[in-house]
Amino acid sequence: MALTTACQLAPAWEGDDSLPPLPPPLCRDPRRYPSLQSPRTSASRRVKPTRRGRNPHDWAAAAHPAGWIIGRMNPLLGRLQAYPFERLRQLLADITPNAGFSPISLGMGEPRHATPELIKTALVAKLDGLAVYPATAGEPALRQACADWLRRRYQVDLNPLTQVLPVNGSREALFALTQTVVNPQQPGAVVLCPNPMYQIYEGAALLAGAEPVFIAADPARGFAVDWGTVAPAVWERTQLVFVCSPGNPTGAVMSLAEWQQLFELSDRYGFVIASDECYSEIYFRETAPLGGLEAAQQLGRSDFKRLMALTSLSKRSNVPGLRSGFVAGDAEIIKAFLLYRTYHGSAMSPLVQAASIAAWNDEAHVVENRALYRAKFEQVTPLLARVMQVDLPDAGFYLWAQVPPQVCQGSDTGFARALLAQYNVAVLPGRFLGRETDGHNPGAGRVRMALVADPAQCLQAAQRIVQLIEENTPVHV
Amino acid sequence: MALTTACQLAPAWEGDDSLPPLPPPLCRDPRRYPSLQSPRTSASRRVKPTRRGRNPHDWAAAAHPAGWIIGRMNPLLGRLQAYPFERLRQLLADITPNAGFSPISLGMGEPRHATPELIKTALVAKLDGLAVYPATAGEPALRQACADWLRRRYQVDLNPLTQVLPVNGSREALFALTQTVVNPQQPGAVVLCPNPMYQIYEGAALLAGAEPVFIAADPARGFAVDWGTVAPAVWERTQLVFVCSPGNPTGAVMSLAEWQQLFELSDRYGFVIASDECYSEIYFRETAPLGGLEAAQQLGRSDFKRLMALTSLSKRSNVPGLRSGFVAGDAEIIKAFLLYRTYHGSAMSPLVQAASIAAWNDEAHVVENRALYRAKFEQVTPLLARVMQVDLPDAGFYLWAQVPPQVCQGSDTGFARALLAQYNVAVLPGRFLGRETDGHNPGAGRVRMALVADPAQCLQAAQRIVQLIEENTPVHV
Repeated sequence: MALTTACQLAPAWEGDDSLPPLPPPLCRDPRRYPSLQSPRTSASRRVKPTRRGRNPHDWAAAAHPAGWIIGRMNPLLGRLQAYPFERLRQLLADITPNAGFSPISLGMGEPRHATPELIKTALVAKLDGLAVYPATAGEPALRQACADWLRRRYQVDLNPLTQVLPVNGSREALFALTQTVVNPQQPGAVVLCPNPMYQIYEGAALLAGAEPVFIAADPARGFAVDWGTVAPAVWERTQLVFVCSPGNPTGAVMSLAEWQQLFELSDRYGFVIASDECYSEIYFRETAPLGGLEAAQQLGRSDFKRLMALTSLSKRSNVPGLRSGFVAGDAEIIKAFLLYRTYHGSAMSPLVQAASIAAWNDEAHVVENRALYRAKFEQVTPLLARVMQVDLPDAGFYLWAQVPPQVCQGSDTGFARALLAQYNVAVLPGRFLGRETDGHNPGAGRVRMALVADPAQCLQAAQRIVQLIEENTPVHV
Repeated sequence: MALTTACQLAPAWEGDDSLPPLPPPLCRDPRRYPSLQSPRTSASRRVKPTRRGRNPHDWAAAAHPAGWIIGRMNPLLGRLQAYPFERLRQLLADITPNAGFSPISLGMGEPRHATPELIKTALVAKLDGLAVYPATAGEPALRQACADWLRRRYQVDLNPLTQVLPVNGSREALFALTQTVVNPQQPGAVVLCPNPMYQIYEGAALLAGAEPVFIAADPARGFAVDWGTVAPAVWERTQLVFVCSPGNPTGAVMSLAEWQQLFELSDRYGFVIASDECYSEIYFRETAPLGGLEAAQQLGRSDFKRLMALTSLSKRSNVPGLRSGFVAGDAEIIKAFLLYRTYHGSAMSPLVQAASIAAWNDEAHVVENRALYRAKFEQVTPLLARVMQVDLPDAGFYLWAQVPPQVCQGSDTGFARALLAQYNVAVLPGRFLGRETDGHNPGAGRVRMALVADPAQCLQAAQRIVQLIEENTPVHV
């Protein structure tokens, strides 16, 4: 069997290959994990998880040694953090996975269910679109299909020509929208990000010249972000707030009450809300997740003032390679965003537009897709819940589980290393998705597991995790 | 026959629909052009072509009335100019084209030759790529195909993994590269742009927080940009220089001597050169246009220091709807650009990557495509040269012709209006591609004609232009 590293299993990492390795936190019994090299252990890890090694900022600085960004280049690039999967690669670089087990990755959140045929058919039927420059605004038919979907899904009524705009996936849109709404000339501009989070929020804020400020998701409140912890002085400098509902990695869906609080704050302080809803169609309760536009409408804010919802086909329709999504909301922001985008230059190919129309107009494949995820979560969650603190999320395709204290002293990075070394399963340490504030990284001590592989693989991975934890659990006779 | 406006003929304009109309310069004999409304004429137009109406800056300000960009949005958006095709739409809004002639557009530079089958085939063969997130860096096979093409075309040897990066078309790349290299924290940062130019250069500079400074193409020197006119104080603030070779709209190709001068200036002042070469494969001389990388290599600069060449498949392979190109050059800049792009989020779809590999690896369709353009230019250029000052360009698919003084007093806007009103042919007034500096817009008095339509249409358009000019030319008996 080939020796496959978790990094090879997560092939779509993108970025700088020259980052120096983090000193990895270690958790091992040398008899059990012969591939782990360093003999150090980490007694204090659970209390101050990021203090032992370099802190994330030191590490980022080391990742961009003087010289590689040439003299006059944009210095904001030097503030970017290493990407989670690059950190994972480095964390696991010295690990030889146990070749006695087939490799299974729960690391990358890449959808792996089959792409519906109707999307492929629509794309191929539009090959003559290769000969035409697409307009940045997209075809009216596509914008109409997006608005129609919003109406069916959220009972909201948006004007397709003024309140909807296609984008080439939500990453592109989150980044470009941030550049559009943030005023780089205002000193001390703040962009609020949930913590843990999808790293693009932070990078988009930094490259827009703003300061990202991280607000922790509160495990005691079902991982709701506690906006009440933000000081008025910070709100006054806040230009943009990212919300992610359903949350990555927590799976938490914002309630109407949370939306109301956020809208009131937006009215008071004037910030824009960017609502990342790209996991909205994969859910596990009777009721579909509440959307930001839907919440606004229910609260009588039918102009969607200062609200932009972003969604994508990648997860809903299993087309991460299509690069298609849309934004919807405040017509004034859409207008400015369209202006920005004419220069930004990310018009959607006519082929992708045709495929997207077919995808948004069909729900049958979405129902099927959701059923596949539900089956996996129904099998895997109770199994894992026997040995670690983990709940069925509201939505999304991640489990956000706490590492039990008896394994690697509860360290997420230690757990990830041990799991790969002994059972050839890759998971993402939660700290890589979080940022330390006030001495605490809310991702530390948790791991994110993407149930994107086929059901048998997911089940097998869960069984191996149970085994790892049980092996490390003292038996009381 | 349907009444079709030039705007309808140029459907891919993208941007703000709310711009107020420019007071159009008028040129008409009311008996001949009944659709022209205003009785004013423009005696002083040839001397100070943009002074009569609002100047472009006033107009841009009017185009973004207070209020439509909401309070805290990026104020740099307010500095963007209206797009040339929006100006054209407004210029021609009150014109009823002569329905006695079929509409022909020489306005938009949109390739219209057939897309090669081999590109479609490669794309369709890669439909399983819809299920995979693409990496921002692109597949090694695509980067290799780009490097191989550079070697065949320019006899340069670049490392595909460090000196080549795929992009989703040259517009996207020009914009993102500018954001990557410009340091927005340096007060007074300057980006140099040729004048006239592709408007993205200006918008990319403005949104990067820099000041675009325009350097005129000199008709007396074959439309070479005269870098000698730039003051040392401007060079000292210059972070990025755009060159466009072959030029849009002039068709001029930079010589080795011009490159040498620019490289020396770059060495002295430290700026980056972004070389837009997207018209390089459509040329009319024996020798193919010199590329920036090729010039660097010939001058012993094989590290391509501070040089980034940008190219695209849109014109070369007639796939404007594919959105595919690449950048190549300085490895340090490529590294920073890749880092920027991981957040920017414009990874190329695996399908597009597969289609692009097929396109870059094939030259037969490029030779055919070039022959089609050559045939059109050989027919059209001598015909027009009988009545107006126009030369066969070095390369590209534009004619850059001077409006004869006897037609509309030599006004480009007047000529465009008259030509549409009387002969239903759309051309782009040169001033919309230029910027006024020192009281002079180097695009004024010229029109850009894209020979992208089929040969019969191009020929017919030329015949109508000849007719318009001859009708306005006094006959000396």
